[in-house]
Amino acid sequence: MGEVHINSDVNHYESKLNGSAIKKATVADSKNSSRRCLWFEEEIEEDLRWVFSVSKILHTGVSDYQDITLLESGPFGKVLILDGKLQSADADEFVYHEALVHPALLYHSNPKSIFIMGGGEGSTAREALKHRSVKKVVMCDIDKEVVDFCKAYLISNREAFKSNRLQLLINDARAELEEREDKFDVIIGDLADPVEGGPCYQLYTQSFYENILKPRLALGGILVTQAGPAGILSHEEVYSSIYNTLRQVFKYVIPYAAHVPSYSDSWGWVMASDEPLPKFSIEETDIRISQRVIGDLCFLDGETLGATLALNKVVRRSLAKETHIYTEETARFVHGHGTAQKLISK
Amino acid sequence: MGEVHINSDVNHYESKLNGSAIKKATVADSKNSSRRCLWFEEEIEEDLRWVFSVSKILHTGVSDYQDITLLESGPFGKVLILDGKLQSADADEFVYHEALVHPALLYHSNPKSIFIMGGGEGSTAREALKHRSVKKVVMCDIDKEVVDFCKAYLISNREAFKSNRLQLLINDARAELEEREDKFDVIIGDLADPVEGGPCYQLYTQSFYENILKPRLALGGILVTQAGPAGILSHEEVYSSIYNTLRQVFKYVIPYAAHVPSYSDSWGWVMASDEPLPKFSIEETDIRISQRVIGDLCFLDGETLGATLALNKVVRRSLAKETHIYTEETARFVHGHGTAQKLISK
Amino acid sequence: MGEVHINSDVNHYESKLNGSAIKKATVADSKNSSRRCLWFEEEIEEDLRWVFSVSKILHTGVSDYQDITLLESGPFGKVLILDGKLQSADADEFVYHEALVHPALLYHSNPKSIFIMGGGEGSTAREALKHRSVKKVVMCDIDKEVVDFCKAYLISNREAFKSNRLQLLINDARAELEEREDKFDVIIGDLADPVEGGPCYQLYTQSFYENILKPRLALGGILVTQAGPAGILSHEEVYSSIYNTLRQVFKYVIPYAAHVPSYSDSWGWVMASDEPLPKFSIEETDIRISQRVIGDLCFLDGETLGATLALNKVVRRSLAKETHIYTEETARFVHGHGTAQKLISK
Amino acid sequence: MGEVHINSDVNHYESKLNGSAIKKATVADSKNSSRRCLWFEEEIEEDLRWVFSVSKILHTGVSDYQDITLLESGPFGKVLILDGKLQSADADEFVYHEALVHPALLYHSNPKSIFIMGGGEGSTAREALKHRSVKKVVMCDIDKEVVDFCKAYLISNREAFKSNRLQLLINDARAELEEREDKFDVIIGDLADPVEGGPCYQLYTQSFYENILKPRLALGGILVTQAGPAGILSHEEVYSSIYNTLRQVFKYVIPYAAHVPSYSDSWGWVMASDEPLPKFSIEETDIRISQRVIGDLCFLDGETLGATLALNKVVRRSLAKETHIYTEETARFVHGHGTAQKLISK
Repeated sequence: MGEVHINSDVNHYESKLNGSAIKKATVADSKNSSRRCLWFEEEIEEDLRWVFSVSKILHTGVSDYQDITLLESGPFGKVLILDGKLQSADADEFVYHEALVHPALLYHSNPKSIFIMGGGEGSTAREALKHRSVKKVVMCDIDKEVVDFCKAYLISNREAFKSNRLQLLINDARAELEEREDKFDVIIGDLADPVEGGPCYQLYTQSFYENILKPRLALGGILVTQAGPAGILSHEEVYSSIYNTLRQVFKYVIPYAAHVPSYSDSWGWVMASDEPLPKFSIEETDIRISQRVIGDLCFLDGETLGATLALNKVVRRSLAKETHIYTEETARFVHGHGTAQKLISK
Repeated sequence: MGEVHINSDVNHYESKLNGSAIKKATVADSKNSSRRCLWFEEEIEEDLRWVFSVSKILHTGVSDYQDITLLESGPFGKVLILDGKLQSADADEFVYHEALVHPALLYHSNPKSIFIMGGGEGSTAREALKHRSVKKVVMCDIDKEVVDFCKAYLISNREAFKSNRLQLLINDARAELEEREDKFDVIIGDLADPVEGGPCYQLYTQSFYENILKPRLALGGILVTQAGPAGILSHEEVYSSIYNTLRQVFKYVIPYAAHVPSYSDSWGWVMASDEPLPKFSIEETDIRISQRVIGDLCFLDGETLGATLALNKVVRRSLAKETHIYTEETARFVHGHGTAQKLISK
Repeated sequence: MGEVHINSDVNHYESKLNGSAIKKATVADSKNSSRRCLWFEEEIEEDLRWVFSVSKILHTGVSDYQDITLLESGPFGKVLILDGKLQSADADEFVYHEALVHPALLYHSNPKSIFIMGGGEGSTAREALKHRSVKKVVMCDIDKEVVDFCKAYLISNREAFKSNRLQLLINDARAELEEREDKFDVIIGDLADPVEGGPCYQLYTQSFYENILKPRLALGGILVTQAGPAGILSHEEVYSSIYNTLRQVFKYVIPYAAHVPSYSDSWGWVMASDEPLPKFSIEETDIRISQRVIGDLCFLDGETLGATLALNKVVRRSLAKETHIYTEETARFVHGHGTAQKLISK
Repeated sequence: MGEVHINSDVNHYESKLNGSAIKKATVADSKNSSRRCLWFEEEIEEDLRWVFSVSKILHTGVSDYQDITLLESGPFGKVLILDGKLQSADADEFVYHEALVHPALLYHSNPKSIFIMGGGEGSTAREALKHRSVKKVVMCDIDKEVVDFCKAYLISNREAFKSNRLQLLINDARAELEEREDKFDVIIGDLADPVEGGPCYQLYTQSFYENILKPRLALGGILVTQAGPAGILSHEEVYSSIYNTLRQVFKYVIPYAAHVPSYSDSWGWVMASDEPLPKFSIEETDIRISQRVIGDLCFLDGETLGATLALNKVVRRSLAKETHIYTEETARFVHGHGTAQKLISK
């Protein structure tokens, strides 16, 4: 993410408007101001709130699926909010997106074609496109407004959006995969958490993985999906269930996790394949990165990958013991409420 | 206050920017959104907060004296914030401004010349200019940025700002009154509360009233000043002291109060003069208003004036017993911190 | 309200428990503590919160009808909370209860028998019993737990609870009035606001007033009821409707209001009778109080009564224009959710 | 932590008090209640708050050094609060305490004598005493009230407090170590974060480590200290500096970290010794634990230890580049304010 054009323009417009040049400031952000007075409040759980100061509302919109907001926050820089839930923050979005994309691409022998379910923000495509081997990235997001919004306002992803290796589709990823006949080396699930009424929970079910996604994986293909909170107190909301569900469908399944500060929790991802996934040493991983990836990674390297793959005893045990399988009937949800349901229930 | 031009323009600009027309929405304000997520928090006391949802930050600025913010709020419409304290809300600013201006002007036999200390927002001038008899309104605010800000963004005061009966001065009201030699029929104190380090507390002192303000009142002239919170639990912060201070300086002093919802409290004003102030019946007041005031008043009429003049037993007793006199040495403050002090202490 | 026994006992118990005497403190209340950290949050509206610091939870309970909590608050001393809504605060409960009880009793030529609908806290009975003429106060509250709770913990009402002039009934006030055959000089509605699912909204309907309550009023009898928020922005929630509903049922109806700080709003009451209600001068009222009331009133006197009876122009106009009549089908509610409904819907 | 005696007693007492048995409930915790209304708010940074619901204040106290509070929280069970900062929560205190204690004791060839700086809560002693080899644990906390408080209210630490292998001293750890002449195999720093005015920052300085602590380490002795937040956005507050400071004093220094949910961040610890610290395989670690530790560990095992030792690229780079050395003059602080300073400044 980065500088947002609209803002400089607005300022420009204003200074024309006022005879006098009003000194610009963000809310309670000036040297003068005695205390913060504007706050964003995310309800992590019904009894737990993550609250940070806001100095600017950079942009807001609403789609058929979600409310969209871009804020300038005190602790995390620019933050993208969908349906009142923080999706991505300037300060640490690289952690989530590097962890989502690079392990699967590094584990694949030669990833040429990538399919991104969701990912409207563009950051996941940005990371995938860093791989020299990648010839085609198909990004399929259902929400045109979110995509247009991020295209317009997230400068750090502009290049990715312009890449001729990127095919951008506005469609339900499920329907898209059902219709297509080509196969992909890596399919990446960069979807919103399964929240009640959200647009995404059908993309975490056994039948979807089995009947729709798996047929679209090429030989040796790898699926990786974000899998919700993975903290010691939160990993049983959906993470352990998504892991166990993938174990019903794929021969080899690898869960991993990392702490994402702006999410106020550890976060989980799961890789899955029917081919054995290699184990690299720290050094081997670092060499692969240097050979395959254009430019530097901020978060991921050999040692970091090792850390994300090593889950603590509490989480490991729950994952091993998990029996819940994610189906449309037995769906589990993280706290929060989507908007699609409301639209449907109209 | 009213519609803010910049906004429609921004929207216009955006719809040009985006190929696709992003549906506009304010934060968590759309039909879809499940809960409010952006909040303004005013610290009324260290242990008491007044918190309302915000859907838009319409504009922000900073002056040498104050932080300036214009918000679109959930419960109160547009609200003007100075140094983190709500100054004025679309929903009920008319209560404060009608109560501040009209009683003194109605009590005066023939108010021609008005001097407003502060009042940069423009609403006080707007109310004063409603009086047919008024030939000249001198509005003297120290903060050019606030005045420019309100001129630019508070449409409902635009006419007042354009009136040829209005003289707008950027100066310290104290210095201005000291230099001037002309006299005024009514002097109105529309100043920020006396907060520690704020720009205004020197304009509530006995010596100021005695030596600087009083000489500028014409024969039969009336001073009226806003006097801070006047609730049963808050009136001893500054209201009772301002009242008692004026009693040291003027022969006739009348305190009055009304509940202003967006302030989350009752508010106090004090009128003072060396000429006896008339007692009008409800009917006489209504007749005066119809004869003198152009257009309708929303809040004030004969019965309302009677209600604002009748203080409850608790407040009346404290006022009668108050011995504190407001001097620069003994200044009392409402909770909050101004910015001027910080500048000075640099 | 007042000192709560349990506390001293707890302290006593603790000092026995610990070899060492731990210095007592309330949360973040000690000289040392740098900032408040425990807060009570009342949701006034979905987009408006009233938040104050809490230093102690003095007691909690739950009845079939309501959650009950007694807190030690920063700004308001002890506060009684029912279903998350502040009911009564040490700092200003006298405003609400004096305004509820005394005007009707003063207007009545010779009030001997009083019926209180609700009033489980005991403060309303306490005020009624101050009248020398009163021989019998029947207090009928549906919630035994609340009554037992307040009996046990609100010392300032202990005397009232012990008075042999008080008859305490645990019953639905509606059922009780339906069954009874005796009549009362004054019936007082000290009921919770009509909130969706709350136990009380049926006691604000035209049919209840017409068919059940009115027959229980003696000749010249007066009904007075609390009537919810009466602020410029809130009086149309239920106040104007309750007023208009009573106008359908009684010949003479008088609305009045006063600001109650701990409610963060002005509050409304309505008196109604089929006999003309007298107009007293300030002096006549003061004389009546001195003749009839044992001891001092803190809030109400002649001038205060005048102020509460004089509504501002905004509220007066809405009341005059209000056409909504409160029936079980057309019930209006203040923001909030009761618990009775939940029990029922089980 | 665990069941708190006082409570059952209070309930007992109450049911005696009231004729009727008031059903017990915690604040807004009952099935009935529609929303949380009591909240604990920790200011993580000036612009970031961690807010969770509270159902009971189990106990409060104040010492010469800190405010002490034990709360029943919604998301974390019982939480111990010192000076408004969450110290320890039922739900996950085992993560912090196992990570603090066991790595150093496992790395030591044969740990017999342990010195705990601080640790008044008792959980650190509890973990150390799980090691069969440990003959003596000296726990030295400056705050008698905190120790008495935890002794009285944290049942899960009662056994540890009663152990005859535990020597409990009330003294400044610095002074204590200065006076003593015996040496220890492991010295554990379980101190409050260095906050401005807090009691502890002098125990993180180079001179303290060099001149006072190191001489008290036996041959092959290991120091381990908690080292504050270690998240990608927070590790430069004090963690990197404590690490770099220890590198000036010890030959071998190992930083490690783990996410502690109730702290809303990853947390850091640092081990240091002048003898090389061994590298164990996952299996070797698991064997050591089974041989040395009585009973099970909840969080730590071979794989978990590996994960905590593997820092991500961002943190590793900052640690490598850190040049700041922690001295009394150059002290860095985490956000927050202690109380000792206030006492001193009196």
